[in-house]
Amino acid sequence: MALIVQKYGGTSVGSAERIQAVADRIIRWKEKGNDVVVVVSAMSGETNRLIDLIKAVNPRGSAREQDVILSTGEQVTIGLLAMALESKNCPAKSYTGSQVKVLTDNSFSKARIMDIEDSAMRQDLDDGKVIIVAGFQGADENGNITTLGRGGSDTTAVALAVALKADECQIYTDVDGVYTTDPRVVPNARHIPKLSLEEMLEMASQGSKVLQIRAVEFAHKYNMPIRVLSSFDEDEQCKSTLVTREEDIMEKVLVRGVAFNRDEAQLTVTGVPDEPGIAFKILGPISDANIEVDMIVQNMGSDNTTDFTFTVHRNEYEKAKEILCVFADEMGARTCGGDNKIAKVSIVGVGMRSHAGVARDMFEILANEGINIRMISTSEIKVSVVVDEKYLELAVRSLHEGFGLENEAKSVA
Amino acid sequence: MALIVQKYGGTSVGSAERIQAVADRIIRWKEKGNDVVVVVSAMSGETNRLIDLIKAVNPRGSAREQDVILSTGEQVTIGLLAMALESKNCPAKSYTGSQVKVLTDNSFSKARIMDIEDSAMRQDLDDGKVIIVAGFQGADENGNITTLGRGGSDTTAVALAVALKADECQIYTDVDGVYTTDPRVVPNARHIPKLSLEEMLEMASQGSKVLQIRAVEFAHKYNMPIRVLSSFDEDEQCKSTLVTREEDIMEKVLVRGVAFNRDEAQLTVTGVPDEPGIAFKILGPISDANIEVDMIVQNMGSDNTTDFTFTVHRNEYEKAKEILCVFADEMGARTCGGDNKIAKVSIVGVGMRSHAGVARDMFEILANEGINIRMISTSEIKVSVVVDEKYLELAVRSLHEGFGLENEAKSVA
Repeated sequence: MALIVQKYGGTSVGSAERIQAVADRIIRWKEKGNDVVVVVSAMSGETNRLIDLIKAVNPRGSAREQDVILSTGEQVTIGLLAMALESKNCPAKSYTGSQVKVLTDNSFSKARIMDIEDSAMRQDLDDGKVIIVAGFQGADENGNITTLGRGGSDTTAVALAVALKADECQIYTDVDGVYTTDPRVVPNARHIPKLSLEEMLEMASQGSKVLQIRAVEFAHKYNMPIRVLSSFDEDEQCKSTLVTREEDIMEKVLVRGVAFNRDEAQLTVTGVPDEPGIAFKILGPISDANIEVDMIVQNMGSDNTTDFTFTVHRNEYEKAKEILCVFADEMGARTCGGDNKIAKVSIVGVGMRSHAGVARDMFEILANEGINIRMISTSEIKVSVVVDEKYLELAVRSLHEGFGLENEAKSVA
Repeated sequence: MALIVQKYGGTSVGSAERIQAVADRIIRWKEKGNDVVVVVSAMSGETNRLIDLIKAVNPRGSAREQDVILSTGEQVTIGLLAMALESKNCPAKSYTGSQVKVLTDNSFSKARIMDIEDSAMRQDLDDGKVIIVAGFQGADENGNITTLGRGGSDTTAVALAVALKADECQIYTDVDGVYTTDPRVVPNARHIPKLSLEEMLEMASQGSKVLQIRAVEFAHKYNMPIRVLSSFDEDEQCKSTLVTREEDIMEKVLVRGVAFNRDEAQLTVTGVPDEPGIAFKILGPISDANIEVDMIVQNMGSDNTTDFTFTVHRNEYEKAKEILCVFADEMGARTCGGDNKIAKVSIVGVGMRSHAGVARDMFEILANEGINIRMISTSEIKVSVVVDEKYLELAVRSLHEGFGLENEAKSVA
C-alpha cells in the first residue's frame, strides 16, 4: 500500500463541481489501496478577492495581518473538500497549517517551513481517513499564522510528502505535465514524460509555471519524486511528467527545454569602488528587505571601479531601486538605475554537463535573429540570457527550433 | 484608565469604509485613555456566502468542517481592522479564536466557551496595542476549530470582558439601544436608556434582536455591564442603552417593554400516560438532537393521560416533529402534531415581581382585540403568550399602547 500526497491548485478546486470531481479522483486513488493526503489551494479568484479587500483597507498593512486574511482562502477549500468526501461516504478530516502543525519561521508572507508535526495525521491515516491540508500556510513558534507566498501550496505538498515519507508527491494542475517550452508560445512544444529534479529545478526557476521552484528544491533535497498531472483529464488515461532523480532517468538529453520568465526587472549600479565585499554591501540591504535576487553579474569597470547588475521580481523593482540608489549615493557610484521591460530566456538540460558548445550555439541562434543579449548567466545544466522583453517570443521560438526540441529528444548519454 | 471591550457586528464592518470608521471610533476611545479590546463579526453577507458554498458542496457535511469554513469570515475582518488601525498609526494585533485561545467544548456549530486564556492579550495591552479578536469562534482542547452559532460574537465579547475584568462591554450594532418594542412594528416605541440585566435577558430571549441571549446570560452571571450603541451614529452624541445590575437602576417599572418572536413553532403531543418522568421522556430525545426548547406547557388530560406542548425554533420544526412523533407512536399517544405559523409576544418588567394583576391586564387587552391565546408562560418578570402569527403586530401594538409605553416610564419602585 502506497502513501500518496496530492496537491490540487486553485483552478482544480475552483467551483463546487470541480471540488466534487477532485473528491471522486481522491476516492479512486483510495480504492486502489493507497493512503491519500491532499493539499489544496484557495479556490481560483479567492486570493485575488482577499487581496482586493486588503488593498481597499490598507495596501501597506503589516504582513502578519495580511497572512491572517490570505490564509482563509485555503481554509475554506479544506472544509469544502472534506465535506465533498463525506458526502461520498469517504471519511476525511481537514487541517489548517496551524493545526498540522506546519511550523515555519516568522517571515510573514514568505515564511519557510522548519518542521512538520506528523503524529496526528498518521493517526488519522491509520483510521482510514483522507487528510486534507491547507496549502500555502503554517504557523510560527508563537502560533502566529504565516503564509509561504504564492505557489506555496506546492511546497506544502512536497514538505508533507517528505515528512510522511510518501511514495510520490502528485501535483495536479491545469496542464498534463512539463513541455519543452510553453505551448502558448511554441505550438509544437513537446510533452516531456520524465525529467530529472535538477532539470525541473532549472525549468521551474526559469519560469516554467508548472511547479514552484521552492517545491522542486525541497523535493530535490530529499529525493522526493514529483508527478505533474492534469486534474481536467477525466478519463485518467493521462499523460504526466515524472520528476525524479537523475540516476533514474536513462535518457540524458543535451537540451531538455526552453524556459523563460517575464516577471523580472534589472537593476544596475555603475562606478562603485572595486573592493572586496562590494557585492555583499550592495546585496545585503536588498536581502534584508526580503527581496529575492535572481541573476547577478559583475563587470570590471575603468579606474578601479566596477559595475554591478542583478535582477529581481518585477513587483519588487521600485522597492529594490529605492534601496539600491540610496546605497549608490552613499558609495559615490556613477549611476544607478534599471529596467523592468526585460525577460529571461534559458536552455536547460543535464547533457550540458558533458558537452561544451551549447552556450555558443545558443548565442549564435539569437544573433541570427538580431536579438541583443543584455546579461548572461550559466550553471552546469543551463544557460540563461536576459533580453529586451519585446524579443521574448522570438527568442523562445528560435531556440526551440534551433535545438530541434519539436522532435523526439536526442539522447546524448 | 478603563478597559473597554467593544463588539462590532457584520453591518458595522460591512465594507472598507465602514471598517475605517470603526478604526476611527476605536482610536477615539483609545485617545481618551482607555485600553480597548475589540471583537468583530464577519463582514455582512460573508457568512451567507460561505453557507452557500457549503450548501453547494454538501448541505449535510459534518459540523466540524462547516466550522472550519464559517470561522474564516471573522478571520478576514480581524486582519482588515488591524490593518486599518495600523494605517492610522495605532498599534494593533489580531487574534483568531484559536490563537487567544477561546477554549470551548466540542459541540461544533453550537460550542460553549469554557475558558479564555488572557495572558497574551494582557501583554499586548501593556504594550499599548489594540487587540482585535475574531468573534463567534474558539477551539476545543484538541485544537479543532469551533463556532458558537450565529450571534456568538456578542458572547465572545462578554466572555472576553469577564475574563479581562473589563469595566464595560460595548455592543455596537445598527440601532442605538433597546426600545420598548420594535419601532418597525410600533413607530412611537420609546428608547430605554437603562434597564436591568434580568429585563434584558427576557427581552433578548423573547426576540428583541439587539443582543443575543447567551451573551446577556453570561453578562448576568458575572455582573458585566453591557452598553448597546449604534456604530452608525458618527457624532457620538449617541443615545445608548446601559444594561446593568438591577441594584444600579433606580427606576423600577411595571412593564419595561413588549418583546416578540416570529421564529417559533409549536409542537403538541396529546394523550400520553400521565406518569412521573414523562416530560423528560418527551424532551430528552429533542435535547439529544441539540434542539433548544423554549416554552413548555403541560395540561392534565382525561383518563390519566396528559397533553404536552412546547415550542422550538422554526428552523428545527420538521426535525423536532419527526423525533416527537416517533416517540408518540411508541408511547401510544393519541395525537402528535404542531404548527409553525405561531408567534410569541411577551411583556417584561422587574416591577412585576411586586405587582400582581399584570398578566390579567395583558389577557384583557388581547381579548379586547379578539386575539386568541394558544399558550401562556410566566416568569417572575415576564408574561409570554403564543398567538397565531397573523395577530402578532396587532398584539404588540395593543399591548404597547395598553401599558402606556409610549409615555415616560412610570416608576413603581
